[in-house]
Amino acid sequence: MIAEVIFTGTELLLGQTLNTNALHLQQSLASLGLDLYYQVTVGDNRERCARAIREAAGRADLIFVGGGLGPTEDDVSREALSEALGIPLVRDEAALAVVRRFFDAGAIPMAANNLRQALVPAGGRALDNPAGTAPGILLEDQGRVFFLLPGPPVEFNRMLDELVIPFLRQRFPGRLGIIRSRVLKFCGIGESSLDEQLAGLLKSANPTVAPCAREGQIHLRLTAKAENEAEAEARIAEMEAAVRQRLGSYIFGADGETLPGVVGRLLAGAGQRVAVAEEFSGGLLAHLLTTDPVAREALACGVVVGGQPPGSQGTAPPPELFRPEGATLKEKAGRMAAAVRAFAGCEIGIAVLGAAVHPGRSDEKMTVCIATNLAGAGREKELQLWGDPSQAGRRAAQAALVLLWRSLSR
Amino acid sequence: MIAEVIFTGTELLLGQTLNTNALHLQQSLASLGLDLYYQVTVGDNRERCARAIREAAGRADLIFVGGGLGPTEDDVSREALSEALGIPLVRDEAALAVVRRFFDAGAIPMAANNLRQALVPAGGRALDNPAGTAPGILLEDQGRVFFLLPGPPVEFNRMLDELVIPFLRQRFPGRLGIIRSRVLKFCGIGESSLDEQLAGLLKSANPTVAPCAREGQIHLRLTAKAENEAEAEARIAEMEAAVRQRLGSYIFGADGETLPGVVGRLLAGAGQRVAVAEEFSGGLLAHLLTTDPVAREALACGVVVGGQPPGSQGTAPPPELFRPEGATLKEKAGRMAAAVRAFAGCEIGIAVLGAAVHPGRSDEKMTVCIATNLAGAGREKELQLWGDPSQAGRRAAQAALVLLWRSLSR
Repeated sequence: MIAEVIFTGTELLLGQTLNTNALHLQQSLASLGLDLYYQVTVGDNRERCARAIREAAGRADLIFVGGGLGPTEDDVSREALSEALGIPLVRDEAALAVVRRFFDAGAIPMAANNLRQALVPAGGRALDNPAGTAPGILLEDQGRVFFLLPGPPVEFNRMLDELVIPFLRQRFPGRLGIIRSRVLKFCGIGESSLDEQLAGLLKSANPTVAPCAREGQIHLRLTAKAENEAEAEARIAEMEAAVRQRLGSYIFGADGETLPGVVGRLLAGAGQRVAVAEEFSGGLLAHLLTTDPVAREALACGVVVGGQPPGSQGTAPPPELFRPEGATLKEKAGRMAAAVRAFAGCEIGIAVLGAAVHPGRSDEKMTVCIATNLAGAGREKELQLWGDPSQAGRRAAQAALVLLWRSLSR
Repeated sequence: MIAEVIFTGTELLLGQTLNTNALHLQQSLASLGLDLYYQVTVGDNRERCARAIREAAGRADLIFVGGGLGPTEDDVSREALSEALGIPLVRDEAALAVVRRFFDAGAIPMAANNLRQALVPAGGRALDNPAGTAPGILLEDQGRVFFLLPGPPVEFNRMLDELVIPFLRQRFPGRLGIIRSRVLKFCGIGESSLDEQLAGLLKSANPTVAPCAREGQIHLRLTAKAENEAEAEARIAEMEAAVRQRLGSYIFGADGETLPGVVGRLLAGAGQRVAVAEEFSGGLLAHLLTTDPVAREALACGVVVGGQPPGSQGTAPPPELFRPEGATLKEKAGRMAAAVRAFAGCEIGIAVLGAAVHPGRSDEKMTVCIATNLAGAGREKELQLWGDPSQAGRRAAQAALVLLWRSLSR
């Protein structure tokens, strides 16, 4: 079955309010296996709201309208639905009871325009609103079902969870599917390269396979629809196996797993600690390692080298850590990795060194070298980065973490 | 003039991604005095995207499409625009240059399907993308202007701010309202306290005065509408003076100024360097200082203390830096600040020390102590933080920077 969602509210079009109702409704629809093809936002305008409802009725089975059920002139959903379908509004006793209950409970007298909230298109029915004055509306017409829900998130979410979803499950038994999804997480591979190598699989209809690029990572979401959970899980497992066969070596984790978490587990498993020296990424690699409690445990120390590193005036800063010598960036990075490892007296040293960032030339290319030192054995990798300095710094820190993961997982 | 906005992306309909691009675009349109009547979200489906573009072209002057410009099969915006308007796609050399630049910079080879990103409807032109591979597209057709912008927020926002808005101002002189705004930036004061003290001013209609809380800061946006620039500037200057009279001591800067930038200027002016030791904020304070070139110059070094700090096995790590002794958190933080200052041999030391972050108890409160040491004189400040560990870490780093700013600006 196909759903369509309409939100009304001028504040939603002015960028003043983040539409959190949308997220909750979309997730609910997806978990019921309903297809959502269009979501439309209109202002507090009856004509445009009616037009959106008519368009939705022409292409969807279930139409949801969020907002516009208040008592004031700019609340237009009821009237728009009536106009779009040519069904007159009539006083509904159940709706009136919802409105009255609110005012009976409080000390506020009911205003005349609150009576508008008791209107429902003929043949429709009111949905109770335990959290506010505005009753919702449910109307079945010519094989379609229309839901009008109040805009305030507390009211919207309760009505959706407690009334609308149970109604759908009861009204359409067997027609709502089970949806399961799993996210495979890749690093060290670009999106278009992943795309080429997964070519055929990305066209799969069930499960669907959708890549999404995150900084330095790609998250591949497998989403299966099925009659029951076991079938959904089986579809996902089969696709996961196919993906792993092609690109398994780039997959560091799945679902809630993070790269720092995976690296932390590998370090803990090997009983190794790591020390980090950052001239280019300004503390971000050390920070990534501290975001996971296990990786944090395995971090001995991080050293950030600033613009005027300590020299002989300091008490004990080893010079090769702060001012490594070398003819090339690789040589310097290698010495820095060895120096930070010796400084902390631990198993692994990593250094991230780069060309200086020139202020005012934010889109220039930068050469960054990442060096690792595992128990004395050095390894360096150079990469070209661009973008503004903090973006480049984040990319360098991510790349260093990927290099550490590769070193540990082989 | 009327604008219409279309976003493409199945992830936006599944409720997996919050559409922050929408907010930024809507606010920009509002500030230009453009009317937005409809905003439509569709999945990664060419036919439905084309339909949405056709509908928008029938009722708006400026049509914005966000997302769907990547290299893969499910990126459909280019093809949908071509289909909706009946204009064929042709290879564009400027677009190709944008795509190539990205791959020339990195070590990743360009995949064949990246060539799709160099296609532009005949008569249109490519918009440069300094932050990614996907060129944007600008097309004028039958009195309408179409803008296709890439989906990743960094790319979307830069292209909008740096290319699209300047284009609109130049292309439609006199048809866009004159709007000027100025952002005053506060730190060291809470939002409700600022709210109370600015009471009457917040209700001003022109300029409007809108506070917005950012991590550890409040940005107060003054926005004036006027017939001409001079009038707009005068309205803003008058309001700024009134705000400064009440809360001037909390204002560290305005508009593009950043707290690291302001701190960097103060350090450079005083000829002082700073060294940072972080047990709690995991490198984020050092990182903040490296985000500004002047502050970076004044940074001697940062030290991140991990879960297993170096002991006697290291070559020279001073024990009072990594394992400071003391009966209280304040005492330890004070010693750490003095130790990192001595280690780097510079004028100012700062330490951020806190209660251990317990995994799995992410909403507990944490006590964090920030200590500064200026030429031997110590000062400590304790604060209570809550939220997940990385949020708390960011707040602690911000608070430390605020403390440094206060010390330097008095």
